[in-house]
This record gives sequence, structure tokens and C-alpha cells, in this order.
Amino acid sequence: MTQSMEETSVYGEAAEADAERYYAALDSFNVEPLWRNTNPRLLPGEPKSRAVPYVWRYDDIRAQLMTAGRLISAEDAERRVLMLINPGLAPEVETANNLYAGIQLVLPGEIAPMHKHAAAAFRFIIEGSGAYTAVDGERAHMNPGDIVLTPSWAWHDHGNYSDEPMIWMDGLDLPLINKLEANFFVDGPENVQDELRPADSTERLYAASRLNPAWQAWDKPYSPIINYPWSVTEQVLKSALDEWSGSPTDGVIFEFTNPRSGGSIMPTMGAYIQALPARMHTEAHQHTSSAIYHVVRGRGRTIVDGQVLDWSQGDTFAVPGWSVHEHINTENEPAVLFSHTDIPVLKALGFYQERSCPRQA
Amino acid sequence: MTQSMEETSVYGEAAEADAERYYAALDSFNVEPLWRNTNPRLLPGEPKSRAVPYVWRYDDIRAQLMTAGRLISAEDAERRVLMLINPGLAPEVETANNLYAGIQLVLPGEIAPMHKHAAAAFRFIIEGSGAYTAVDGERAHMNPGDIVLTPSWAWHDHGNYSDEPMIWMDGLDLPLINKLEANFFVDGPENVQDELRPADSTERLYAASRLNPAWQAWDKPYSPIINYPWSVTEQVLKSALDEWSGSPTDGVIFEFTNPRSGGSIMPTMGAYIQALPARMHTEAHQHTSSAIYHVVRGRGRTIVDGQVLDWSQGDTFAVPGWSVHEHINTENEPAVLFSHTDIPVLKALGFYQERSCPRQA
Amino acid sequence: MTQSMEETSVYGEAAEADAERYYAALDSFNVEPLWRNTNPRLLPGEPKSRAVPYVWRYDDIRAQLMTAGRLISAEDAERRVLMLINPGLAPEVETANNLYAGIQLVLPGEIAPMHKHAAAAFRFIIEGSGAYTAVDGERAHMNPGDIVLTPSWAWHDHGNYSDEPMIWMDGLDLPLINKLEANFFVDGPENVQDELRPADSTERLYAASRLNPAWQAWDKPYSPIINYPWSVTEQVLKSALDEWSGSPTDGVIFEFTNPRSGGSIMPTMGAYIQALPARMHTEAHQHTSSAIYHVVRGRGRTIVDGQVLDWSQGDTFAVPGWSVHEHINTENEPAVLFSHTDIPVLKALGFYQERSCPRQA
Amino acid sequence: MTQSMEETSVYGEAAEADAERYYAALDSFNVEPLWRNTNPRLLPGEPKSRAVPYVWRYDDIRAQLMTAGRLISAEDAERRVLMLINPGLAPEVETANNLYAGIQLVLPGEIAPMHKHAAAAFRFIIEGSGAYTAVDGERAHMNPGDIVLTPSWAWHDHGNYSDEPMIWMDGLDLPLINKLEANFFVDGPENVQDELRPADSTERLYAASRLNPAWQAWDKPYSPIINYPWSVTEQVLKSALDEWSGSPTDGVIFEFTNPRSGGSIMPTMGAYIQALPARMHTEAHQHTSSAIYHVVRGRGRTIVDGQVLDWSQGDTFAVPGWSVHEHINTENEPAVLFSHTDIPVLKALGFYQERSCPRQA
Repeated sequence: MTQSMEETSVYGEAAEADAERYYAALDSFNVEPLWRNTNPRLLPGEPKSRAVPYVWRYDDIRAQLMTAGRLISAEDAERRVLMLINPGLAPEVETANNLYAGIQLVLPGEIAPMHKHAAAAFRFIIEGSGAYTAVDGERAHMNPGDIVLTPSWAWHDHGNYSDEPMIWMDGLDLPLINKLEANFFVDGPENVQDELRPADSTERLYAASRLNPAWQAWDKPYSPIINYPWSVTEQVLKSALDEWSGSPTDGVIFEFTNPRSGGSIMPTMGAYIQALPARMHTEAHQHTSSAIYHVVRGRGRTIVDGQVLDWSQGDTFAVPGWSVHEHINTENEPAVLFSHTDIPVLKALGFYQERSCPRQA
Repeated sequence: MTQSMEETSVYGEAAEADAERYYAALDSFNVEPLWRNTNPRLLPGEPKSRAVPYVWRYDDIRAQLMTAGRLISAEDAERRVLMLINPGLAPEVETANNLYAGIQLVLPGEIAPMHKHAAAAFRFIIEGSGAYTAVDGERAHMNPGDIVLTPSWAWHDHGNYSDEPMIWMDGLDLPLINKLEANFFVDGPENVQDELRPADSTERLYAASRLNPAWQAWDKPYSPIINYPWSVTEQVLKSALDEWSGSPTDGVIFEFTNPRSGGSIMPTMGAYIQALPARMHTEAHQHTSSAIYHVVRGRGRTIVDGQVLDWSQGDTFAVPGWSVHEHINTENEPAVLFSHTDIPVLKALGFYQERSCPRQA
Repeated sequence: MTQSMEETSVYGEAAEADAERYYAALDSFNVEPLWRNTNPRLLPGEPKSRAVPYVWRYDDIRAQLMTAGRLISAEDAERRVLMLINPGLAPEVETANNLYAGIQLVLPGEIAPMHKHAAAAFRFIIEGSGAYTAVDGERAHMNPGDIVLTPSWAWHDHGNYSDEPMIWMDGLDLPLINKLEANFFVDGPENVQDELRPADSTERLYAASRLNPAWQAWDKPYSPIINYPWSVTEQVLKSALDEWSGSPTDGVIFEFTNPRSGGSIMPTMGAYIQALPARMHTEAHQHTSSAIYHVVRGRGRTIVDGQVLDWSQGDTFAVPGWSVHEHINTENEPAVLFSHTDIPVLKALGFYQERSCPRQA
Repeated sequence: MTQSMEETSVYGEAAEADAERYYAALDSFNVEPLWRNTNPRLLPGEPKSRAVPYVWRYDDIRAQLMTAGRLISAEDAERRVLMLINPGLAPEVETANNLYAGIQLVLPGEIAPMHKHAAAAFRFIIEGSGAYTAVDGERAHMNPGDIVLTPSWAWHDHGNYSDEPMIWMDGLDLPLINKLEANFFVDGPENVQDELRPADSTERLYAASRLNPAWQAWDKPYSPIINYPWSVTEQVLKSALDEWSGSPTDGVIFEFTNPRSGGSIMPTMGAYIQALPARMHTEAHQHTSSAIYHVVRGRGRTIVDGQVLDWSQGDTFAVPGWSVHEHINTENEPAVLFSHTDIPVLKALGFYQERSCPRQA
């Protein structure tokens, strides 16, 4: 409420017709009266994401991808990706707020030519072994469960020299960088980059990243590790499940980190692996960050703002920012979820908020 | 281009009709084929902002505001703001990419009740003296040229106890925080907050911010200074103009800083004051950050992607991200521009790029 | 106390003579048995500085300096410094732990030739006007109460072109850098460096360091400000005394800061100015940092570990680390103390501790 | 050289006797004339450490330790340490500048009671298996080649429940913290702390420290890892030797890091493991940091300021700061050196310098 001294306002004397003429004229000056704003999104009491909770079933996606494998031309194979479009955000190419995921099929013998972009990306491998991603002169071989980074401005190309199809999830900060209108894309001078180091040498170099190679300087804002292999991840999860209960809202959850900073793998995306012990029903909470989950093992459900998302291995699901959510592992084996989030973005800008909530079930 | 082994693709055998049926079906799965994407904004070669270069003339805005002063009810006075809508971004409430500016009129005797929000804001005072902004228990009095901060989550209220109208420009990170869906808004328990300290005491405390009060801890991510008064700013500019030529692209340009960090006043916005010496025609450059300029003194033009923006005192103009731009002071006196930008956001996320360009005139 | 299984120790069977022979032999291997260590400084329960509380009277020092002005040869004039030697630390050249202060006299017409060193230094001006310190191409003119920086590795030279003697206090981190054995010293190619900018231009440039010159990059770990002039310092103190009570242990105390970082002026020394209101008797505390105080105005006493240090204008006194201390202004006017400390060192290494204590008087 | 106007100096008129009387009197004021300083260490052209290059032979130290095992009383067993005293620094307890190493023998059945101190420490295990170090509620079992941290202010106790003697090297920042007079020591309330977690659980938790446990907050300035086991270190070295040549001055060298920061294990000490390939003769360099090396495997020599230090497994040697040094592996197998340094200290204070030098052999 605003208090105004009587004599400065003549509201009431002005005919309504005058007002309408006034408002109509404002348009031509490219201004809008704040006092007539009716958009609840301009100054909301608290965030209400336009994104909706949603599960993309792996059975469906995989079937459609396989059809695409027959349908699309060889030239387009590098783009044989089904982009997961959040129903609340369409037609924007956005899976959860600020985050993108797509499922890609690379058939035997195919390559994706070298390029680089300001957008940051990673791959989470779902099926297939033996394909590689080459980054800045080194090929990383990919196996299911691996997470492979192609950070901002790093040259990269992919190739499948195995005799089986490769399916992976691409995770990118595309929606964010496109909102910020800061993306660049450059094609490489060659299709396939030269190998400057033996394959997978960075993986071996940082096998125990508690030990950093002191003869290598590193001044990039992202992790020097190209591949975080599943073989290591799985071992860490197994061991931790034996002796830690982890977080009440997330179970035994690890962040993939940049060994040179101890922080997130990239400035714009955080990546996590978590194991929900058998039959765990987590506490509920909400946070301003959003997340895309990919189910690595097991079966369960996540309740998001009262809506039940049932999931099982291979599924991908979106949890919008500030939604109240809790996870339930419905089985007697641990469930394993990979996720990526925009936590580093919200924290860097001072916008990260988190709150405990009563459970919804 | 992607190379594919012949036997894995049967493209060509598939009837076009089949393909169309396939694509139609994909919709129901909430996926989109990347290989059919025709949106040039998804992976652009370089940024092309949807925002356009534009000048809001102060004469026009002021006249419309004065009419609003007669038209709108006392209860709405706190929202007597004409929001500057970038024609390229409408209907979004966005003045330049990630940035908002609105011009507000506060008549004598009016107050704006206490509230706080996650969005960060500042005021640049255009006309009038004697009104105040109260922030976290302290009233800062406002005079033309002052920049007054109401940072993220800080309680604030305004009041005009003078006998003349106050006009100021509101600068906010609203478009950014709303894209990130992280905004919160809370009304205060009272309309007018209690005064915990003498008016303007922080301004005096940080009069020379090379001297920080050591008895006060400060752990906020923004500046503790509430008012950066014009009296100081003007003196600094005058003195610098006498002996420095400044930057080839921006003349003598200073950043308002957080004396506790040496960095930008807030994590999401940078604020600058710059003086273009008489007749200066700057070099041209482009950067991924965008800017809203407000003309404090003088007259000139800015060429933005080939388009000429003529400006004079009181005008506000938008320079989109990655646009090629150069400034020209057409007069024999220094011109002074205040601006706010999203540079801290782009730098924090690793997205800031800058490039010199040939002059356009 | 250590518990040992009986059979592993044969102590008691060994003749004392054998033991003595054993200990004598150890010397030749350059080892020492920890179990025979009797040095209480090796693993103290809490710090007990070897430094002692001490006041150097300005009347005494000034008189001796003036004699030196007659005694020493022209060639040595640049070293006409009386180094303040803490009685507890002699013969080390150390005034308080890690910190050095010396009082220097520069007579009219004298210069100190250009040099640089890894040790960081500043001058606090006690008497005289019109001399300059040139740093990296700029001359800063010095007046009483100014603090002038000559940071690590910055070229500097001094000259007194006035017709009166200049007396200042040199503050350096010499004891620290010498303990770390990391000092370097280089004579300049000329006696007097070229002037690259107008005199005092940095002072004007950072007159309001809340405004940083955006056209200048700065990547040094120390402040770009050469001179923090007394005219500004005095004004800030006066204004603050009118409305703030400051810290219970230190009154109204400001830190001189690096406007590019918001932190201390140099990585190895912090500098402070504080005003104790009339008749203030502060609370007592102790901290691992030590300090050298110089009395700028007024008269009072500081109680340090029970010992009373009486001081008045011009005096310099040392407060050892971890000593319990409190200040008393015995007069009806504010007393003003300048101090420098090793706080940044102790904080950087994780060794800073602070504790409130009961007052001693 | 200083130029002085003739009339201000009366040097030459003063009788020498007067001067001597003057200098004698200065003492009573606790000042020293800088112009009479003859200590070359006060302002050296470049650092010349008082520490000397030196090798402590393991055969000697071990024999003396074993004698001590018979000599000293049970109560003193926790201090059965031979402190390595640098001949150039005696009688200070200092092995290389700022760094301490001692060799400790813990016999079967012995414990060292719980305590904590501000000084930071680690153990490098030389002989024996089965003893533990308990840190903040967790026991870490120690095997040869492990490095076990007991950081600043962490409660710790040791025990040897095996049936063989344990020998380890203690590494501490004692000389540094004692120079800074900031050490504290507190005995624990019990001799043996309660076990709050299963033994070695932190080691398992950070088995791949590229994965940080997200459910655990960590705000300490040191590594959360208690034990960096040799089994991992050895594997990393082997793998790296197969494909990297490493640094020309240090071969394949890794830094043990804090997985929460990517930096050194502690703010005051860095720890490294390096493998010199067969017959490697490194380039020479010098740096302001000093180092204590412990030979883990192999045999070779290090030339330090022209002095040859021959070393083989178990030996410990000191390389003073700013000494020119190069390593030579004289054998056909890789040599492995563990080292700890004060690099983090020098870098934090801006005192780190490094320079390439011609080889000395």
C-alpha cells in the first residue's frame, strides 16, 4: 500500500477513456506500465518453474532411436539425437530449467566430425563399448556408466569403431548459454583430430586424483579429466554403501569433481552419482536448482510436487527447480541414479536456496 | 559430414510417408529429432542477440510518467514505473539481455512499503532531491547522479518527503533471475522500517573505501555501500579526465565496486560511470555482455551493428550482447554515461568473450 | 604418558654411562633425541613470544636521529635509519614478531637511489612535507600522516627537495622474509627513475576507491595505491567518531585496503588506523598476530601482559603476539594510533587465533 | 649513493671519539643504526640459506633408534624420535628451512596418547605394518609408503598393536609455526580416543577423490583424507612412468592434494611423490622453497650447490631454499622420492621464485 498526499493525485477526475488512450499510446514508446502488470512470473512470491516433472521411458526412446538409425542419412548420423523436450518448456529445447539432455545413437563405423563450442557438454554412456570421444588430442574409450567430458571450447570428435551400436545421453548447458546468448560454434579443420597422446592417458594420469600431476600446469575452469569411468564409480558406491548412510534426502551421493579445484566438473553443470539403499524412502526437500536424473540401476519412484514419477533402468526424468521432491527405492537392491544440475550456476550468482519439506507420501 | 558404413543405413528404402508418420509420433514422446532442427539459435556460429539497439528518449518517458502521476491511484504509486521493453525481446520484460531498467516517478509524500526479494536492484537518480531509500535499517538520501543499492534479500522501502517529484531509473537483474526461475518476493512486516542507524551513515563510513571499517564483519556477496553519491563520482571523473585518456573503447571508465571484494557491486550486475572526452570517437569492439546506458551529461551517438543511436542527457539506450559498437561524443564538453551490465554473470560462468572490431564510421 | 609392554624395554639394565656415551654419539649423526628435549619453545602449551612489550620514545629517537644527521657521511644518508630493536629479540633486527620498524631522517637535498627488493615496505610520515617517494614511474608527495607503499619488487626511490628535514617510520616484513630466506635486493639502473605519470596521479585516480579505473588491468597481489593521504584518513576518522563506537577492543578502527581485492594492502602486512574516543578504556584480548603501533595523536597507555606502556604522540610501541592487551586513552580528546601487523600472514597459513580476556586494570 | 647538500652534514668535523660515544649510547634506546649494519643477511642480493645440503643415512638412524628402543623408559616411548637437525641451522630444531623431519620408532604394544596442536603433521611410513593413527574418531592403519595426516588442531593418537616395530618419518611445520610463535599444544581428555567410524573409512570414501562425498560438508583448510596409501601411489607412479616423461627437473612427479580444494594437503606443507626414470639426470633449477626428501626406492645422487649427496633407500636429505640442484638416478630401475616442502607458504605470501640453471655435472 502506498500513501499519497491528496493534492498530487487527480485520479478519479481522469475519464476512463483518457486512461485507455494513454495506455494505448505507451506501446509506441516501447514501455509498459508496471502497475498494470498481471504476469505472476515477474515478481513471484516464490519460484514456480514452467518446467514439469516428467519421465522419458528408455524403452520408448530406444525404439524410436533404432528406427532413426534406419531412417536418417549417413550425413546426418552425427545428429542422430532425440532431444528430450520438457512439456512445460516446449517449444524451447530444454529438458529441465537451464539443462539439456538428448539420447544419441552412434552406429558402428560412424564418426561425428571435430568441432568445438562455448557450450559445455558431457556424455553418460548407456549402451555399447568401444566407441571413443577424442578431446584436445586424446581419445577416451567409452563404456556403460562412464561420464565423458567435452568442456567449453575443447575440440572434440566421436567415432564408433566397434561392431555394436552405442547409445549415450548428451548433457549440455545449451538452454543456459542460449538464454545468455553467448554460444559459439566452430567446425574443426579436419573431421578427425590427431592423437597427441595415447588413448585414455588422462584417465590413467588421474586414476587417483588425490594425486595431481605436478609437471602439468592447468588454468582452465573445468576438470582435466576426460573420462570418469564406471569401473571406479561403481567401486566407490559399493564401498560407501557398506558403511555410510549418506544424506537423508539423497542417500549415498557423490559429486564428480574437478581435481584441480575440488569443485564441480564445469562452471555451469554439476554431475552426481547416488545410490539409494534398498527400500530407502528419502526425506523431502526443495532447492532452486533443477536436475535431470538418469536411472543407472534399479527401480523406484520420485514424488515431485505431489506427482509420482515411476522409473526404472535407462529412464531419464526431470525434477524442476523449487519442486518438493523425495525419492523411493521400491526394490531390495540399491538403486543408482546419475544426475546433472545447475547448482554451480545458482551458487555462483547467489541464487541457490534449499529448504526441508514434509514428505508427501 | 558423417561417414557411415553402408550396411547400417537403409535410408532411401524408407518411404517418405513412413518418415512423416515417424516424426509425427515422436511428439507424443516429448522428444525432438536434432537432425531436423532448423532453429539457428540452437547452435549458432556466434551469438546474435534477439535484443535490438534502442534509445528511450527522456523527453517522451518523462512526459508519460507525469501523466501517470495524475492517472494512477495512490495505492499503485509504488509501482509508478514505466518498464523499458526492448522491442526485440517483447513481450518479455527485458531491456537488454539479462537486464532490466524502468523509469519511476515518486511524488511528494509518497512511500513505497518495505519488501525484499532475491532479485538484486539499484536506483540511478535522475531528478529530485530529498527522497530516501531505507536499506536494512538505514536511510540513504538520494540526489541526482547517485546510485543506491538494494541488493538481493535486503529489506528496503522508499519515501519522498521532499516537495518535488523524484525520478529515478531502476536497474534489476529480473530477466536473469526469472530465466533461472529463482526469484522470491516477501512483503515487510511494516510499511516503513525502523531506523537503526543515522541516515547516510554507511556513505560516510565508506567515504574513502580504501579504508574499511575493521570492527564490522561482512560476509555478503554484495557491496556494503548503500549510496555511491554523485558528488564523489563527479570529482573522480573530473580529476581523471585531466590526466588519463582511459580505454580506447570507453574513454575514462570506472567501475563502482564492492570495497570488501574489489569486485562488482553485486554478483549479477556491474555498474560503470564513464566520461568520453570532448569529440572522442572510440574504437569499436564487441563482447558477449550486454549493457543499458543512461546519459548523465552531454550528447552524442553510439553506432551499434551499423545502426546509429543518437542520445542526449536523460536518455536510456540498450546495447545488445556481441553487437559491434563504438561511441562518439559529438560535443566540445565531456559526455558522461552511466551503464549497467551482466559482465559478472558471464565471467562467473566462463562465457565472457571480447573482440576488437573495425570502426563502423 | 605412554604405555609399553614390559618386555620391549630394558631401561634400567642399561648403565647410565652407556646412555651418556650413546647421547654423545648422536651428535655426530646430526640428530637429537626428542625425549631429551628441554626447550619449552618446541611444543609450548600456548605461544609465549620472545618479543617484549616496549615503547620507543619519539623525543629520544628524534634527538638521536638529528645527531646522526650531523654525524654520518653523505653517502650513507639513504640509510640514516634507527632500527627499532625489540629487547627480547636482539640481536635480531626485529621490532615485533615478523615485523620491522625503523625511524628515518632525510635531510633537504638528499635522495635515496632507486632499488627494489622482495621484502615489502611502507612509510608512515611523521614530520615534514614535500619529499617524494617514486614507485614504478610515479612520484607520491608525502605529508605527515600519509602512508606510502613500496611493495614487493616495485622499483622505488626517495628524495627530499623541500627545505626541511623529513622523518618517517619505515615498516617492513624483513624479519618474516628473512626467516623464510626469500629476500632479494636489486639496485636500479639509475639513481632516480623516470617519471612516467604526473606526480600523485594514482592518489587522485583512487581518490574514491569504491570506483576502480576499469581501463587498467591489475594482477599484482598488493594495492595499486601508492599514497593513502592523511587528509582522507583524518576525515574518515572524524566522521566515524561522530556516529560509531567501533570495536570494544580497538575503538573506531579502519584497515587500509587494496581496492582491487578488498583485503590487506600487502600479502604480508596489514595496516590500520584507529581512534580511541576520549577516556576510552578498551576490553582486553589476545591474538596470535603481533603489532607495531605508532602514536599519531594524543596520549594514553596500553597494558600488555600486565606491563604498562605509557605513550604519547610520536612514540612507537610493540605488542607481542598472544599478549593480553588493552588500550586506555587518558585524555579528553580522541587518541589516534597507526599500526601494522602480521595478520594476513597468520590468516593465510591458518594460524590466526583470537581470544577475549578479563581486563588487567 | 646518496647526494647531500653540503651544509646539512657536518661529518668530518665530528671527532671519531664523539661518534663512538654516540653509537655506544644508542644501545640504551634499543635502536641500531642501519648505516652501520654489517649483517649480509639483512638485505641480501639473493637468498643464501643458512641450511646446508645434508643426507641422514637410514642405516645409521635405524641403528641409533633401535638402541633407543632399549634405552628409554616406557613413559618416553611416545617421544622415541630422532630429530634430524640441519647442521647449518643447529641448535634450532629444523631439518630444512621451515620444515622438520624426525624418525620415530614405535615398538609393539606402545601407544602415543591423544593430543592436538596448531602445528600440522604427517607421517611417512618406512617400516612395519599394523599400527594405526587415529584422527578425529577414525583409525587409519599404516603400511610402508603410506602418508598419514594429522592436521592442525586435529585430535590424534597412535598405537602399535602389531608384533613388529614401526618406523616412520614425522614431517611437521614446527620450525615455521615456532618462528611465527603461533603454536599451541593440548593433551587429550583420554589416552585413546573413541572410534566414531570404522577404521580406514575415509580412505575408502575418497578412494577415487575425483568423487567427493556430497553429503559431507567440509570447511577445513586441509585435506579430509587421513591416509594416502602406498598401494594407490605406487600404481599411479607405475602407470605414469609408462607414458609420461614428466618434468625435466623432477621426472614424473605428483602432488598429494586436498580433494576439496585441488591444492596442497595443508596450508603450510606440500607433499610430493616422484619417480626418476632409470638413469635420468634432470635439469638443474633453484627455487625459494626448500625440501626434505625421503628415498622410497632406488639409489642416486643429488647435486646441491656443487655438493654431491649420494642417497639410497631409506635415506633422508635436505635441499635448502634457492640452492641450485639436480637429481641423478644412477641405476637401471626407477628411483622414487617422497618429499615435503614449504611451497604453499611461499606462494601464499608472494615469495615463491623459481629459475632454471645450468647443470653442475
